[in-house]
Amino acid sequence: MIGLGAMGGALAGAFLTAGHPTTVWNRTPGRAGALAERGAVPAGSAAEAVAASELVVVCLSDHEAVRETLTPLAAQLAGRTVVDLTSGSPLDARDTADWADRHGVAHLDGVIMTTPPGIGRPEVLQLYAGPRAAFDSARPALAALGEPLHLGEDPALAPVYDTALLGLMWGTLTGWLHGAALLGAEGPGGGVPATSFTEVADRWLTTVRAFMRGYAPQIDAAHYPGDGFPLSLHSSTMDILAHASELRGLSADFPQLLRELTTRAISAGHGEDSWARLVEFIRTT
Amino acid sequence: MIGLGAMGGALAGAFLTAGHPTTVWNRTPGRAGALAERGAVPAGSAAEAVAASELVVVCLSDHEAVRETLTPLAAQLAGRTVVDLTSGSPLDARDTADWADRHGVAHLDGVIMTTPPGIGRPEVLQLYAGPRAAFDSARPALAALGEPLHLGEDPALAPVYDTALLGLMWGTLTGWLHGAALLGAEGPGGGVPATSFTEVADRWLTTVRAFMRGYAPQIDAAHYPGDGFPLSLHSSTMDILAHASELRGLSADFPQLLRELTTRAISAGHGEDSWARLVEFIRTT
Repeated sequence: MIGLGAMGGALAGAFLTAGHPTTVWNRTPGRAGALAERGAVPAGSAAEAVAASELVVVCLSDHEAVRETLTPLAAQLAGRTVVDLTSGSPLDARDTADWADRHGVAHLDGVIMTTPPGIGRPEVLQLYAGPRAAFDSARPALAALGEPLHLGEDPALAPVYDTALLGLMWGTLTGWLHGAALLGAEGPGGGVPATSFTEVADRWLTTVRAFMRGYAPQIDAAHYPGDGFPLSLHSSTMDILAHASELRGLSADFPQLLRELTTRAISAGHGEDSWARLVEFIRTT
Repeated sequence: MIGLGAMGGALAGAFLTAGHPTTVWNRTPGRAGALAERGAVPAGSAAEAVAASELVVVCLSDHEAVRETLTPLAAQLAGRTVVDLTSGSPLDARDTADWADRHGVAHLDGVIMTTPPGIGRPEVLQLYAGPRAAFDSARPALAALGEPLHLGEDPALAPVYDTALLGLMWGTLTGWLHGAALLGAEGPGGGVPATSFTEVADRWLTTVRAFMRGYAPQIDAAHYPGDGFPLSLHSSTMDILAHASELRGLSADFPQLLRELTTRAISAGHGEDSWARLVEFIRTT
């Protein structure tokens, strides 16, 4: 494990918990103490750390630091697998993957969809992009961190999935928060507690997930049958949300975003199509 | 079952499927044929329908139609339970509940969170508001339609929950669609299929649900500890979403909504608080 910041330290800890022999190294010394007490082997240099294992996991401040650290070790890394959990852009991921290709290093770009305290929980998503064979060989060890998924060969997929999934999270949390505010303003005595709403909201998301799974093939086929829940029906109930929000003194921004997007599609003649048709109105070019 | 439109017909069908003796009536005749073939008893009048059962389920075009239909039967309805699945506003729900109170009729205002083809699936949410005792006595029969939940005594809770849950659905589907558009524009050959993204998105929602459940008590306590995932961190990754969307020719509306809301809270000094703090910036009064 190269890089023992908050995330790197949590990763090393999860490997130890799962019983994997783990060698650790950090550019700035003095970070390995607690891990060593749990059985990690502190390496004296990055070269020593790399020599210790077929699998080299890297989590540094940025991709420049990754290439700076690994370039002097390129010959030694040839034939090993580098799992790179350093944050970066799609371009960063491709640059580091190109570097690895040139040096005969198997490279996976990865993202773990949690903050350091979540590392190691079995349901935590880990997303990896790069050669399938490298993923398959690293997978048993990576399972110590959460649930590893392989996205495809293009290393840029990991950061773009990360961004797309965060967008889904923010959309969900925005809708949930608006609902909590709406019900919190309802009735006497401070309204419905957010915890009561959330119990129902949590169950409801099971249905929403089924909608998502139903709409996804419509996007891929560019064919959007309304099936009893067309945009025109969404639109009229969105008007109720806007009105209810206004009555209760809530921000109009979220209902307005929904109505504008839906109105664009309906004005273009798609009122009887399903929600999935809106994808064509998110794409503006 | 009073009212045999698309929804009322589906409700009657689900009662029959579950083996409940079901009497049906519709203001405009000629709607009961297919249900009668499945064993429903067509009533000659609303009075005859009401006489047939302790539980009267009503699903009409609006609440005015409900009161018009039921007022002549008030004496007969006294002591029975009316489950009203007619769409309407919180005010409508309270008006009909007041009418029922004046006539000694137990009344539940209800919402079923699906379109007619979904009626009867065990996971479909049914939300009821009104006297708890009426809910408890109606529950065994209502279980034929989906999963019945009791929201509280105030009849307005059913339509407001409906609106709040639809808002959650729209937020989730907006974030998901934006992510599908983002990944669909990624890489060669038309990008990542929406079905591939949705497989990962579906798993990710398990984590998002856990966030929701974690944030709900923060709202109720009006105390929002950042716990390693503060608004400042959300904000910097929102910038990445905005930039990635722009690069791929996607609408800026959704990322902009997120950034505006977050920026308002951070500017007010809450950058180290959790997402849940944003509820105070959705409330504008």
